[in-house]
Amino acid sequence: MITTQSYTQLYRDALLKDVIPFWQQHSVDQQAGGFFTCLDQQGKVYDTDKFVWLQARQVWTFSMLYNQVEQCPDWLAMAEHGASFLKTYGRAEDGSWYFSLTRDGQPLVQPYNIFSDCFATMAFGQLSVATGNDEYARIAKSTFEQILRRRDNPKGQWSKAIAGTRPLKNFALPMILCNLSLEIEHLLDQTLVDQTIDECIHEVMDVFYDPDLGLIRENVTPEGKFSDSYEGRLLNPGHAIEAMWFIMDLATRRNDHALLDKAVRITLNTLEYAWDSQFGGLFYFMDSQGHPPQQLEWDQKLWWVHVETLVTLLKGHHKTGNQACWDWFERVHAYTWAHFPDPVHGEWYGYLNRRGEVLLPLKGGKWKGCFHVPRGLYQCWQTLVNLEK
Amino acid sequence: MITTQSYTQLYRDALLKDVIPFWQQHSVDQQAGGFFTCLDQQGKVYDTDKFVWLQARQVWTFSMLYNQVEQCPDWLAMAEHGASFLKTYGRAEDGSWYFSLTRDGQPLVQPYNIFSDCFATMAFGQLSVATGNDEYARIAKSTFEQILRRRDNPKGQWSKAIAGTRPLKNFALPMILCNLSLEIEHLLDQTLVDQTIDECIHEVMDVFYDPDLGLIRENVTPEGKFSDSYEGRLLNPGHAIEAMWFIMDLATRRNDHALLDKAVRITLNTLEYAWDSQFGGLFYFMDSQGHPPQQLEWDQKLWWVHVETLVTLLKGHHKTGNQACWDWFERVHAYTWAHFPDPVHGEWYGYLNRRGEVLLPLKGGKWKGCFHVPRGLYQCWQTLVNLEK
Repeated sequence: MITTQSYTQLYRDALLKDVIPFWQQHSVDQQAGGFFTCLDQQGKVYDTDKFVWLQARQVWTFSMLYNQVEQCPDWLAMAEHGASFLKTYGRAEDGSWYFSLTRDGQPLVQPYNIFSDCFATMAFGQLSVATGNDEYARIAKSTFEQILRRRDNPKGQWSKAIAGTRPLKNFALPMILCNLSLEIEHLLDQTLVDQTIDECIHEVMDVFYDPDLGLIRENVTPEGKFSDSYEGRLLNPGHAIEAMWFIMDLATRRNDHALLDKAVRITLNTLEYAWDSQFGGLFYFMDSQGHPPQQLEWDQKLWWVHVETLVTLLKGHHKTGNQACWDWFERVHAYTWAHFPDPVHGEWYGYLNRRGEVLLPLKGGKWKGCFHVPRGLYQCWQTLVNLEK
Repeated sequence: MITTQSYTQLYRDALLKDVIPFWQQHSVDQQAGGFFTCLDQQGKVYDTDKFVWLQARQVWTFSMLYNQVEQCPDWLAMAEHGASFLKTYGRAEDGSWYFSLTRDGQPLVQPYNIFSDCFATMAFGQLSVATGNDEYARIAKSTFEQILRRRDNPKGQWSKAIAGTRPLKNFALPMILCNLSLEIEHLLDQTLVDQTIDECIHEVMDVFYDPDLGLIRENVTPEGKFSDSYEGRLLNPGHAIEAMWFIMDLATRRNDHALLDKAVRITLNTLEYAWDSQFGGLFYFMDSQGHPPQQLEWDQKLWWVHVETLVTLLKGHHKTGNQACWDWFERVHAYTWAHFPDPVHGEWYGYLNRRGEVLLPLKGGKWKGCFHVPRGLYQCWQTLVNLEK
């Protein structure tokens, strides 16, 4: 039997002795600024494009560690290195954030993706706490305000849907807004924070949660109903489980036990539904009616799905004492640590096939950077410390 | 040893006794018009959206069989049934074709995808031959002219790329234009046909073909150079091999032996490069530098890749006598027939994992319809008949 203490040490050491040093060693672009994120198995750069999601997330990670773990000057320097590149090159004229840039900062892909703005807000918000720098605070706040203005039509001119025929809303934005308003709480009016949290909890737990199914849907009609279409049938189990730890944190803050219990129940329902009983691990996408999903990668096992699930299960167990959360934690932990970390070259693989074999031998790419693994390890470590108390 | 005659019978019977009856039985929407294409393992409809690619391709298939195999009234009725739905609901005001429609024909997704227009041209072109109907001919011709006008900026307002930073051109459009100008040759000025064919052969065989690599790239710079980026490194082996049978047909028409030999060489190079020596079958996507591709589905085995390869290999063998083409044909044939057809419920699976196991138990979906399998079976059957002579 593994003791709680040995789990604590494992998560802390993986974060501080493996994952963070890996990104410090391999990802810094000393010449052009910002970070390389396309890193192969050994950490070697195989593509130099700069994706704003990942630039911003890495700034956030190093700022957060500086704010929460230790005021380590190297960590702050990493965050400022990325922030400098982002604020110089990252924004279009209207202040929205490009999706990607060339190595030297020329814009490649339009600011079509509102999540670039979300991660930029997180990055500059955390860094403003670390530095007290007003410019960073202003960037975070103005980007957040722009997100709120865009939220009802996030894709804007880049939307391919014909307006009105089948209006659907997507789960990702309310889910991330929950988290975002807390990230920059120090910069916002308290009324706006409380109102945003109220709306987000309602959207996630009442509108996207389907009580008949016991699961959270990825897309619903504007009235919160089921749409019998590819988008409407889509389930993204990792996404739903990740949202549940945001909700648990909000429920704790509000001392709302019913909300906590509901988040635990949804987590366990999702695990039962999406766990691959044949090969282990959680499926990436599913169809709520059991039909073939559109996503060809539906049966793959992704790093972020598993690391976010570990966070949710530990928080669920810590906050409610639920034993099933602990049992599932041990099961998902065993699968995750047997398959994702690379003991030879460090850090984690991101993409496994259904059998848990490495599908793409990369440590970073267009979507995987210095974010889910370190954030998840940090959250698990802290929750395990609290469990020991 | 399998005789040529028994191959001939297999391909003909699969087309006429399995695949075509499957679509006749399961895909017709008698109530709202057009075709259902989202059909599960048994042929049962699991989604009712109408994708213009697949509506048009099915109209083409039945028209082509009527024109080429037998003037069977049921086939013509199928084609007219689909064409009636398409011409009523399929076009936006400017004459471009929507990407998808609801079951009853309301537009769902904007005409962002120029290939909807390409397949509509093919459909109405073939149907105009079958019927002599001027309206169909006019639709085919005006759509083709619109494609030529859009060809230099096919994504138009829906493009997310920042113009100028990294201009790239994509292989799909010149490849399909080769084929398209022949499909509606009867409607076009001969000078335009010859000029389009000249341009297409040059683009495919000189611009997208990389002589150092011996393979065709999916995207190149406007000058036809390699771009060291995800898009620039991308290889799509099935796409390249499919293009080679279009080129072989054009080379035959022009009696150009050098072009034929080059198409055979590229085909064999691509097979050597993309054949999965461990589990058999051809990979879906690869990176020309051996880096991880963006596409998570890169190692899957897709129906159209394999059926198009069979066509190319038979044509290559028939037109040049190349023995390696025949040997590869027997190898790819054995893999294909062992993995894709469903002997219980008929038709073919579309999506297998790397090991050749069924990944999605569908016969049709958003991208798989009544097109590659019947067209490929027809082309193989005819080429085998010619081989017997």
